[in-house]
Amino acid sequence: MKTRGILIVVSGFAGSGKGTLMKQLMEQYDNYALSISATTRKPRGAEVDGKEYFFKTTEEFEKMIAQGELIEYANYVGNYYGTPKAYVEEQLASGKDVVLEIEIQGALKVKEQFPETLLLFVTPPNATILKERLVGRGTETMEVVEMRMRRAAEEAEGILSYDYILVNDDLQECVLQMHHIIQSEHYKTARNAAFIQQIGKELKGNVKGE
Amino acid sequence: MKTRGILIVVSGFAGSGKGTLMKQLMEQYDNYALSISATTRKPRGAEVDGKEYFFKTTEEFEKMIAQGELIEYANYVGNYYGTPKAYVEEQLASGKDVVLEIEIQGALKVKEQFPETLLLFVTPPNATILKERLVGRGTETMEVVEMRMRRAAEEAEGILSYDYILVNDDLQECVLQMHHIIQSEHYKTARNAAFIQQIGKELKGNVKGE
Repeated sequence: MKTRGILIVVSGFAGSGKGTLMKQLMEQYDNYALSISATTRKPRGAEVDGKEYFFKTTEEFEKMIAQGELIEYANYVGNYYGTPKAYVEEQLASGKDVVLEIEIQGALKVKEQFPETLLLFVTPPNATILKERLVGRGTETMEVVEMRMRRAAEEAEGILSYDYILVNDDLQECVLQMHHIIQSEHYKTARNAAFIQQIGKELKGNVKGE
Repeated sequence: MKTRGILIVVSGFAGSGKGTLMKQLMEQYDNYALSISATTRKPRGAEVDGKEYFFKTTEEFEKMIAQGELIEYANYVGNYYGTPKAYVEEQLASGKDVVLEIEIQGALKVKEQFPETLLLFVTPPNATILKERLVGRGTETMEVVEMRMRRAAEEAEGILSYDYILVNDDLQECVLQMHHIIQSEHYKTARNAAFIQQIGKELKGNVKGE
């Protein structure tokens, strides 16, 4: 009973630790692939085309939009970011579970196009801890922290559109829960229609024949 | 994030090994409770009221039906069997995940009354192995084996009404998968509406106040 890979969207508040979570998931299990975004922003430092991002010119990116080659895209501070469909399809077909880390608007667009997408939301145990984590980073001004908290308050209203919510309290435990949630998903009857049809046919054959 | 217990219905072909599976699940993890059926059949051997079954007179059982105290019931060879609502509710409220082992008609009735019920179907890897297991028991005549195969062919048509399908190939692995599926279910956003509302409120409070 081998199913096709599952497309998973992970969203979460800034400060929820979802980045570390993703990294750990990739490191600890080999059945996952991280989706690679296309972007028009310039490569930084040692970034390699096809690894961190697919780097595109604005013209190329807009052509991809026009030809429906992106599952979702958005424009941040003058640069495009998007998820190329071809790469995701390739990974899914090879049986890999593909993880996309995007925010809620993108998540809902993906679900629209791929209704079997699994939507996961990551949150810290409570708002106080979220604020502590954002302040604790020490890299942001209080204005930025407050802006992120306001954004989190808005995002919280969309959580019920997700399938599962994960509380990132203990990192290792959260990685394991995420892994179990995704792997359990492979056993959904809807994802095993071919197998179910097959065993039904075998049983009927057995009853009539022999 | 502690959720109420989950109600789980396990069904499966005769010969799927679901009985052993249930027993192992109960033995290996302590967060499960097996639902206890009410029945009008007489106690056998060392059977104890309130342990193997709740033993009832026909009059008592029919009163339970009339008063809506059973989640589902059926009549087999002149005896009533049913699932008392009170016991299940008690266990769920205490945080236990309650497992019911019933066939498909009963499963669908339970889902109707408790839409959040998790429906699991257990199957052997294929029809040949199913037949081998039934023959291998050596306790049944070939007529009985054939009857069970015919029944399995009918049951196969209902599998898509279940949420998950489990292939009982390796017992230990199947127990683990079942455990992961049930535990993952606790992280469904729909089962954590109170927590999600709470964190949303905290975030809003934080934004406005302080």
